[in-house]
Amino acid sequence: MAAVREFDLIARIRDRVATRGDVVLGIGDDAALLQVPDGRQLVVAMDTLNDGVHFPRATAAGDIGWKALAVNLSDLAAMGASPAWCTLSLSLPDPDAVWLDGFLDGFLALASAHDVALVGGDTTRGPLSVCVTAHGFVQPGRALRRDGARVGDDVWVTGTPGDAAAALSLLQGGGPVDPGLRERLDRPVPRVAAGMALAGIAHACIDVSDGLLADLGHICKASGVGVRVDVDALPASDALLALDAAPDARRHWQVAGGDDYELCFTADAAQRNGIVEIISRTGVAASRIGIVVEGDGVVAVDGDGRVWQPSRQGYVHFPG
Amino acid sequence: MAAVREFDLIARIRDRVATRGDVVLGIGDDAALLQVPDGRQLVVAMDTLNDGVHFPRATAAGDIGWKALAVNLSDLAAMGASPAWCTLSLSLPDPDAVWLDGFLDGFLALASAHDVALVGGDTTRGPLSVCVTAHGFVQPGRALRRDGARVGDDVWVTGTPGDAAAALSLLQGGGPVDPGLRERLDRPVPRVAAGMALAGIAHACIDVSDGLLADLGHICKASGVGVRVDVDALPASDALLALDAAPDARRHWQVAGGDDYELCFTADAAQRNGIVEIISRTGVAASRIGIVVEGDGVVAVDGDGRVWQPSRQGYVHFPG
Repeated sequence: MAAVREFDLIARIRDRVATRGDVVLGIGDDAALLQVPDGRQLVVAMDTLNDGVHFPRATAAGDIGWKALAVNLSDLAAMGASPAWCTLSLSLPDPDAVWLDGFLDGFLALASAHDVALVGGDTTRGPLSVCVTAHGFVQPGRALRRDGARVGDDVWVTGTPGDAAAALSLLQGGGPVDPGLRERLDRPVPRVAAGMALAGIAHACIDVSDGLLADLGHICKASGVGVRVDVDALPASDALLALDAAPDARRHWQVAGGDDYELCFTADAAQRNGIVEIISRTGVAASRIGIVVEGDGVVAVDGDGRVWQPSRQGYVHFPG
Repeated sequence: MAAVREFDLIARIRDRVATRGDVVLGIGDDAALLQVPDGRQLVVAMDTLNDGVHFPRATAAGDIGWKALAVNLSDLAAMGASPAWCTLSLSLPDPDAVWLDGFLDGFLALASAHDVALVGGDTTRGPLSVCVTAHGFVQPGRALRRDGARVGDDVWVTGTPGDAAAALSLLQGGGPVDPGLRERLDRPVPRVAAGMALAGIAHACIDVSDGLLADLGHICKASGVGVRVDVDALPASDALLALDAAPDARRHWQVAGGDDYELCFTADAAQRNGIVEIISRTGVAASRIGIVVEGDGVVAVDGDGRVWQPSRQGYVHFPG
């Protein structure tokens, strides 16, 4: 193990970070000095990943770095925000330069892809834990909130939920995991461009981290509406379809798996064609999976009329 | 133990937080929406406290909550910033409502004292760890940085460094600890008003977290200067002076103890009287402890001509 002191760790990080014109003062003082553009609101998200809780213990350092930033950029995406800056608090059992370099490879690759500057934070001793705060901008009145869904709205989801959960399940079972599925678990792609394209258009939005139906439930609660999901309309990746898994297992991963970091949103049915077009321009597909109804929760029904409902074991189907 | 689920923890936090006019959207969405005032720069600090590393394992929940916010507000103070918002990421081994309520008592008491709104974050499972990001504002050009010290500047410190280190030392020795000293360790008071008063006046500033001489060393390095400290000029609290401790132990706590969260700053000697006055108006004293000289490090000398220098055991004196 290449042990270095804490100050050396900070220097090692500082030597590798990029900056932006709106960063007045980055890493190296008591705090960062930043310039929010005129006429923009600040959007701030904060999420922590803990060893063995949010990622398997054997996860590669680069994947941990990527994912720690990805889950935060996903939160900004769900608000329709344009990302700008982040801070990083890294707790490490030992100051290990090789591990840190790998971690930064993943973290900074994603930061660079979205022109996000790492502007501060700290490194501390402790069990492996990565806390990130992400900052972005949005025009006043155009942020995507959870509380704007309206009865009659279409319900949409980007990408193919369920892939990450399938990968985790296969991994936990000790079996081989398709590299494409594994990538969806370890290197989720935050839907930043899609979120920005939806700002001012979608009525409500959330990123899918806890599972599609659970997260849709948050929109229902915040908006005071119900949602009816057509389970058969849920998009599935080729990799998911190719798995030798029971159809109900696949459904379970899709509706309840979590860790997808896709965007789930509602929008006026009159916007239907426009949404397909603007989202596809961002390099991901959007699928219409349900409608907003009067009521107070999510009902998910498949073509056989079976209703998928939450249980203590996750979402399972009950006779409809 | 009063176990509650994670969502209940978040609801428990949300029910107790105050808001501000510049918080467009606080806890409960994917991210917070915030309005930075026109003509202000954003100041962002992030610090983590880990169980057993940054506080003794037996520390009361309320003290942990206070201190986690205090160390971040201290960073804002060291920039001369006016605090506004914070986010909190709380990792807990078990979702314990009684512990959380105590934690919030301390955290929100300090937040309320500085009109700081808790606007987001997350709660996760993991070893006890508290990560806070604090946001504040400063006028362009008036932030207190580490790189502005000039040869000939006076060097100042607020309050009485060494108290927290003395308390920790007594605590670790198993002896009784004066309640006043203990409070300095468990409930440090961030020098927010002093920092704001110094904005645009002091040339350089840092908060004393690692130890007075070590932190002064950061100013020296960033500013390309040296500092000569008069050890006999270091202010000592009555509680520290009352301890039955060897004079060298007291000196060691003062110059190297850490955890003080006082402000150490440099300013033009022509500002001497003005600084005493503006700082005293904020309810704390400022003491002149040295001068900025040409060179590249800190030299600390006492009245007997002994030079205090860093060693592997901290700062100790060598014959001058």
